[in-house]
Amino acid sequence: MSVYTTVTPEQLTEWLKQYSLGTLLELQGISAGIENTNYFVTTSHGRYVLTLFERIAPDALPYYINLMAHLAQHGIPCPQPIATLNNSYLNQLNGKPACIVSRLKGAPDMAPGVNHCAQVGEMLADMHLAGKNYPAQLANPRGPHWWKETAAAVMPKLDADSQAMLKEELRFQALYRFEDLPRGVIHADLFRDNVLFDGELLSGAIDFYFACNDAWLYDLAITVNDWCMQDDCTLHGERVAAMLSRYHARRPLTAIEKGAWPVMLRAAALRFWLSRLFDLHFPRPGEVTHAKDPGHFQRVLANHIKFEADLRKNWVA
Amino acid sequence: MSVYTTVTPEQLTEWLKQYSLGTLLELQGISAGIENTNYFVTTSHGRYVLTLFERIAPDALPYYINLMAHLAQHGIPCPQPIATLNNSYLNQLNGKPACIVSRLKGAPDMAPGVNHCAQVGEMLADMHLAGKNYPAQLANPRGPHWWKETAAAVMPKLDADSQAMLKEELRFQALYRFEDLPRGVIHADLFRDNVLFDGELLSGAIDFYFACNDAWLYDLAITVNDWCMQDDCTLHGERVAAMLSRYHARRPLTAIEKGAWPVMLRAAALRFWLSRLFDLHFPRPGEVTHAKDPGHFQRVLANHIKFEADLRKNWVA
Repeated sequence: MSVYTTVTPEQLTEWLKQYSLGTLLELQGISAGIENTNYFVTTSHGRYVLTLFERIAPDALPYYINLMAHLAQHGIPCPQPIATLNNSYLNQLNGKPACIVSRLKGAPDMAPGVNHCAQVGEMLADMHLAGKNYPAQLANPRGPHWWKETAAAVMPKLDADSQAMLKEELRFQALYRFEDLPRGVIHADLFRDNVLFDGELLSGAIDFYFACNDAWLYDLAITVNDWCMQDDCTLHGERVAAMLSRYHARRPLTAIEKGAWPVMLRAAALRFWLSRLFDLHFPRPGEVTHAKDPGHFQRVLANHIKFEADLRKNWVA
Repeated sequence: MSVYTTVTPEQLTEWLKQYSLGTLLELQGISAGIENTNYFVTTSHGRYVLTLFERIAPDALPYYINLMAHLAQHGIPCPQPIATLNNSYLNQLNGKPACIVSRLKGAPDMAPGVNHCAQVGEMLADMHLAGKNYPAQLANPRGPHWWKETAAAVMPKLDADSQAMLKEELRFQALYRFEDLPRGVIHADLFRDNVLFDGELLSGAIDFYFACNDAWLYDLAITVNDWCMQDDCTLHGERVAAMLSRYHARRPLTAIEKGAWPVMLRAAALRFWLSRLFDLHFPRPGEVTHAKDPGHFQRVLANHIKFEADLRKNWVA
């Protein structure tokens, strides 16, 4: 349950006087998500999501919120933050920074097919393009420096084989420099639960609270590692081809990116293996267990290493 | 038919490369509207309206387009202009200034009831509030100066009774100064065909190409004169009460505004009587007749004069 801070209809009605959103009709807590308190809000002007930020560093919030506004202005289907009568997206509610954004139609599809993957690839490319003139910058807080720190923290909790694998992957990744890859705004967490479909049609991307500036190809690798993964933790070739081809049609992959692709898939698997290890072994105080299985991304990484030759296929030929 | 400038799917696909709107799926001309060329556009990211501006002065376009963007950011249900990858809302297409905006759900309801009028009143108040910090200014091009000019042009076309009525109304209106009324951005054309309903729920306002800065009460009078008018050209009391009450609940009417209300209803009727007279007697070259009956607003004005005492009722008591 992710309503950490209760908001009553009376409190929200008062808060909404700062907005031009009409009359509050309905307020309903949302149980998904673990970082924030979320409510569905219906007013006479439409359907919205109210978010109270419980853990995200307040300094970073403008980056996320303004990014959503920027992307929405550019036609990326994503939540649009609503500004107050004083032109502010972020406002205190019950002692927490809060914002209200448009609510997208649709629901996640946890069993995506080739067509879903194609749509996600195209939308991700458009998101990268639309982010090109987003003026703010935020370095990836879960980049290589964080990998090393987090690996050091979890290392004592691992068995010998996993320790060896983790050390070897960190050594391997350290051989590569990604500064030459095309960079920009990335979503960095475009898993299946963060994309909505209205029937078969992609209706939007949500949850921009891991967005940052990094290599676009890294974002694509994170996305492929989730959307195109089979139960045995190997990639589904047709889904990968569909996602990469449609991405490539909108934002052509460069030769350097094609060369870096297998390394990047491994980097993306490493990042989530590490964060899941950390969440498992260092749960936040008072947290009911939301920790996901780190073993999943360890197996993904192992298969990326094992089948590296397959990853070198020219997907977008 | 209002497709003055043809756009082919091939031309639009090329033009859309400046945007992050996905792949063009469908393009369909729209026959409504007489000022612009409009197309419904469906891309893989959603449903949009493409507008090529045929007659509107290019200098005024940024005021209208940026206003829609501003209002959409503030939660007013209205078309949201989509920016190019270079952050521009306005771009040439086939030699015309053009923009693409989000397409709202719903359709006009030409037989509105009390509930429709209440929703429109609330939305109009929210639009006025949301426009308070819109930075651009555009004087009403159809204000008192235009009334006099247009009256002089059409006067020779009128019969003696109408001439007398028009002269008398201009004299009457000249007695009043509206500078003390609360002012801001107004829609100035919020007729029934410019508001969409999705079932019983208001889903948006469209057509902001008469928007300008003027007295808010004048906007409310224009709106009441259309939404709350009966076939006999007298006001429907319950609809007026519903619209004004819900407006007042969001943006309380001042004592000065309550006093000015009957004069403002007459001013709003005069403005559309004049523009319809002008369109009837001075049709634009090559125009198939779209002229609407000026007699309608003449009768509205006559009834506002005849039943002025009724208009002084305290609608929002």
